[in-house]
Amino acid sequence: MTREQLFENIKRKQSFLCVGLDTDLKKVPQFLLEKTSKDEHFDAIFEFNKAIIDATAPYCIAYKPNLAFYEAHGVKGWIAFERTVKYIREQYPDQFIIADAKRGDIGNTSALYARTFFEEMDVDAVTVAPYMGEDSVTPFLGYPGKWVILLALTSNKGSQDFQLAPLSSPEGDTTASATQKRLFEVVIKRSQEWVKEASPRGGLEGASSECLMYVVGATQGSAFADIRRLAPDHFLLVPGIGAQGGSLEEVCKYGWNDHCGLIVNSSRAIIYADATERFAEVAGEKAKEVQQQMESVLRSHFNI
Amino acid sequence: MTREQLFENIKRKQSFLCVGLDTDLKKVPQFLLEKTSKDEHFDAIFEFNKAIIDATAPYCIAYKPNLAFYEAHGVKGWIAFERTVKYIREQYPDQFIIADAKRGDIGNTSALYARTFFEEMDVDAVTVAPYMGEDSVTPFLGYPGKWVILLALTSNKGSQDFQLAPLSSPEGDTTASATQKRLFEVVIKRSQEWVKEASPRGGLEGASSECLMYVVGATQGSAFADIRRLAPDHFLLVPGIGAQGGSLEEVCKYGWNDHCGLIVNSSRAIIYADATERFAEVAGEKAKEVQQQMESVLRSHFNI
Repeated sequence: MTREQLFENIKRKQSFLCVGLDTDLKKVPQFLLEKTSKDEHFDAIFEFNKAIIDATAPYCIAYKPNLAFYEAHGVKGWIAFERTVKYIREQYPDQFIIADAKRGDIGNTSALYARTFFEEMDVDAVTVAPYMGEDSVTPFLGYPGKWVILLALTSNKGSQDFQLAPLSSPEGDTTASATQKRLFEVVIKRSQEWVKEASPRGGLEGASSECLMYVVGATQGSAFADIRRLAPDHFLLVPGIGAQGGSLEEVCKYGWNDHCGLIVNSSRAIIYADATERFAEVAGEKAKEVQQQMESVLRSHFNI
Repeated sequence: MTREQLFENIKRKQSFLCVGLDTDLKKVPQFLLEKTSKDEHFDAIFEFNKAIIDATAPYCIAYKPNLAFYEAHGVKGWIAFERTVKYIREQYPDQFIIADAKRGDIGNTSALYARTFFEEMDVDAVTVAPYMGEDSVTPFLGYPGKWVILLALTSNKGSQDFQLAPLSSPEGDTTASATQKRLFEVVIKRSQEWVKEASPRGGLEGASSECLMYVVGATQGSAFADIRRLAPDHFLLVPGIGAQGGSLEEVCKYGWNDHCGLIVNSSRAIIYADATERFAEVAGEKAKEVQQQMESVLRSHFNI
């Protein structure tokens, strides 16, 4: 999906909501688990996701299954993940699918992860951890229409440990602009250089800077303004609204750009809003509430 | 496995070799693939691993399957991974099994990854990426006898991008020792503080500092001396010998401690040394060669 298509979807649906499919069998409604215990062909994870997706699809533009929740069930979980991606692809082809995997390894290994998520799974985007540097990230770049979402400034308390620490440039890099930045700022700056250098894959056109996105936690408030100075055109994936306490208003105030530039994720506050047979219906209502808030800010900002 | 047990295995086998099971269907012998195409119940990934394990087990003390290679085949790959772990557990219970997964996410999500690898899979150790800080790492700590292997200074070129950059301490931390260190050094220092604070899990005794290990690439040469000043007692997992060009002698010279303190990994140079029906036999020979080099340095250093 191109940046333009993503923006069109946002305008059409008046929403920049991503629903996080952090599906935990300890939190899904009891009746789904009871059905599973009686019928081995019934997969509670997938059935939960399917119902949540059907109920929320009109109000969101993206889904983000977090791989941890699927891997926790081994092979069964992996099957549920694959079925979920396939279901979204077939039923709601305009939805942007993010594999929240936070992968990153040496070059040949990252290339395998890229192949897995972009070729085997056919998701639109994968989250990538930057600690191992350039050759751990570039194999994910260069798949036309596929996005890399790099961890920059995350929503958790641990983001303070390293991401916010001031960092000087490594030896050899003497550009003044690369010095005395915080780690997350250096990650954002450097990665934009990498994307320019990424070689094309499969004879197709290579990566474009527009398919690089950054994770910035909703809890990070005014840091959005600093990030917009470094990455004015990029989309930001913003977790941390809802259960983690971030504010939609504050995120919009500092995070907007002329293509919206924001995908705001909510997981637990939507998918676990109700634990009865009405769970999907209530999830739909919660997603609609968020969509309506978004519609209001979109109208006032973009006048559409 | 405790640190003492690991050291006993090293002394008994006169080896601190880890064989990396980076099993790529593009590189396994052709005849295994032909067998797979004729018999859908034949799993070339697992059969390759099984033969490699049987041939190399006398010469190594650990196996390290890299998850990327398994995930690349989706559900089938995940099954091969689970079968491989189970096979090692049952046939070679003294082997230390490392899931090279490089995971790390917000607290509740890292907790799920920890449960997956330590409870569902029953591996001994998992590699963890530090970028997201304390709450992304601590959920992996506190499983008695299970190890966290934190990325510190990796073997790839990209390690220069952020890991080697000088970092000042974040606001609030005013200890002089935390300032003006390179990122990988701050990661090593901080993580030792986290392990002290990790709460026990499941009513059992909590994490001990001895079950924290660091990834340090064999290509990093004299940085081992700096790391030993910060982490004198910890084991280091050392990839990058062989295909990536690191030197065993140099690693030992700077990396030893009184419990050996090194697990040196070799993947491609052992498992793909031969692509004929003799592949496992040749892998065994290559592993034996490395073991003999290790025996020689172990004897001269520990006089055993």
